[in-house]
Amino acid sequence: MKPGEFEAILKANASAVGDLLDDFLSSNQLIAGTPHHLLNAMRHGVLNGGKRLRPFLVCEVAKLFDGNPKAAMQVGLAIECIHSYSLVHDDLPAMDDDDIRRGKPTVHKAFDEATAILAGDALLTLAFGIVASVDTVPHDIRIKLITLMAKKAGAPGMVGGQVLDMQASGKARSEIEITRMQAMKTGALISCACEAGALVSGASDDDRTRMRRYGENVGIAFQLADDILDEYGDASVVGKATRKDRDQGKQTLAQIYGKRALEDRLAALVSGAEEMLEPFGERAERLVEAARFVSIRKS
Amino acid sequence: MKPGEFEAILKANASAVGDLLDDFLSSNQLIAGTPHHLLNAMRHGVLNGGKRLRPFLVCEVAKLFDGNPKAAMQVGLAIECIHSYSLVHDDLPAMDDDDIRRGKPTVHKAFDEATAILAGDALLTLAFGIVASVDTVPHDIRIKLITLMAKKAGAPGMVGGQVLDMQASGKARSEIEITRMQAMKTGALISCACEAGALVSGASDDDRTRMRRYGENVGIAFQLADDILDEYGDASVVGKATRKDRDQGKQTLAQIYGKRALEDRLAALVSGAEEMLEPFGERAERLVEAARFVSIRKS
Repeated sequence: MKPGEFEAILKANASAVGDLLDDFLSSNQLIAGTPHHLLNAMRHGVLNGGKRLRPFLVCEVAKLFDGNPKAAMQVGLAIECIHSYSLVHDDLPAMDDDDIRRGKPTVHKAFDEATAILAGDALLTLAFGIVASVDTVPHDIRIKLITLMAKKAGAPGMVGGQVLDMQASGKARSEIEITRMQAMKTGALISCACEAGALVSGASDDDRTRMRRYGENVGIAFQLADDILDEYGDASVVGKATRKDRDQGKQTLAQIYGKRALEDRLAALVSGAEEMLEPFGERAERLVEAARFVSIRKS
Repeated sequence: MKPGEFEAILKANASAVGDLLDDFLSSNQLIAGTPHHLLNAMRHGVLNGGKRLRPFLVCEVAKLFDGNPKAAMQVGLAIECIHSYSLVHDDLPAMDDDDIRRGKPTVHKAFDEATAILAGDALLTLAFGIVASVDTVPHDIRIKLITLMAKKAGAPGMVGGQVLDMQASGKARSEIEITRMQAMKTGALISCACEAGALVSGASDDDRTRMRRYGENVGIAFQLADDILDEYGDASVVGKATRKDRDQGKQTLAQIYGKRALEDRLAALVSGAEEMLEPFGERAERLVEAARFVSIRKS
């Protein structure tokens, strides 16, 4: 790919996903009857100009296995709702206490704390309703998708990772502990998106495992890049407050090993991700680029 | 039934449900790998000595249609996890700010706010995983159950009702607005439990509708009884703070109409619930008693 080509593809995808989410959060029957105030807060939390990396991954993985593109996108939207809810709750005063996300006030700032808690709850609930309603996908596959999401987004995955991260303030952590936390907090949902792309397309168990592993590498790379941005980045470029981990007394791998060593580690994660894609050759080009992209991102 | 018989049945059921939840929240594979701190907070939120009315309703309705008792109970446990998560979030300082529930410190008091938010999130997520894993029930029925739960617990149901309730502080509300809020906030999940009991047992659409309507009446009766307890009850008997609505400037039907008129209304709701059960005669005795019980409860 030419320089900038992947960024352009991802941007076009983000714009399409944003439009679909906008449509969905104004007219879908799963939200019919939602009080306006709540719906506005949910929309504020979701329609935030995000990179939409997770839906992108679901759709690109689904392409490898000739999955139904529309079904893959619906699953992608559900996973993006989960990602969005996690950000809404993460930004709360009791958690990361962030006022700004992507240059806009966070949901509890634009509305209030109670509304932000409830909007997050509603988005999480909606995500399961969306996957249940993907009617081009057999019921048994939908059940597998829901089981996968419940594990990866819940107590043994993303939510568990957030608890581990929260408990880390002011404590020395081992590299193993930090990596486990990162694999859960960020890796689980990204890897869920990749595995879901395989699952929704009826891929074999082997291929599902490959996609899960690809996603795990991408997820950890994403989090390491985040640590580098937090430690060395410029808030105006990153689009959110930096040095937060340090301020909260949280030890990161960036602090332990320094930028250079982390960049080596990122390169190894990208190689690992590429290895999982080898059987698919050229057809997996965009996924290879995605792994590279998350590891060198500037925001 | 003899006086006290229904209470004894409900109590025995609550004890059995509590034991099952305790087992489930220590060894189920859906939570394998959950950090201890998070699991402890989830357990604190769920194992609280509740009445377990929702699992009771799922199981009793399922009996009417010769449903698999174990499958019905699993669905009941999932709905109880949703009920518990809603209490954990409802008790938060940004919401109702309650320190005590059933004589024990609330989750954010026993742990902290961030942990309470995340424990609630994890319980909600778990609920969908539990229903997806009820393997004695056909996949299409499981999908219908998940769709039902997503609507009734989410933005157009329970969460939406909480938002409407929250917005009510200091405002005059019409009877229609209050009733709509109550139907969503409390009625939706109770009615979901009743409809789920029919659904999990393969009942006809007509019977599903009957059970939903029965549940709607029971749900609104439950909430009205709550309003009466809040307005006229004694905190030491009720087991939580009373006069909260009044303190928060929330108008309730108890305030508008007084105790007597509300008791008439409760009687009408119970009659409506009984009417839905007529075709089942003696077999629905416990459900008839349940409707009476919620309308005259003391705590």
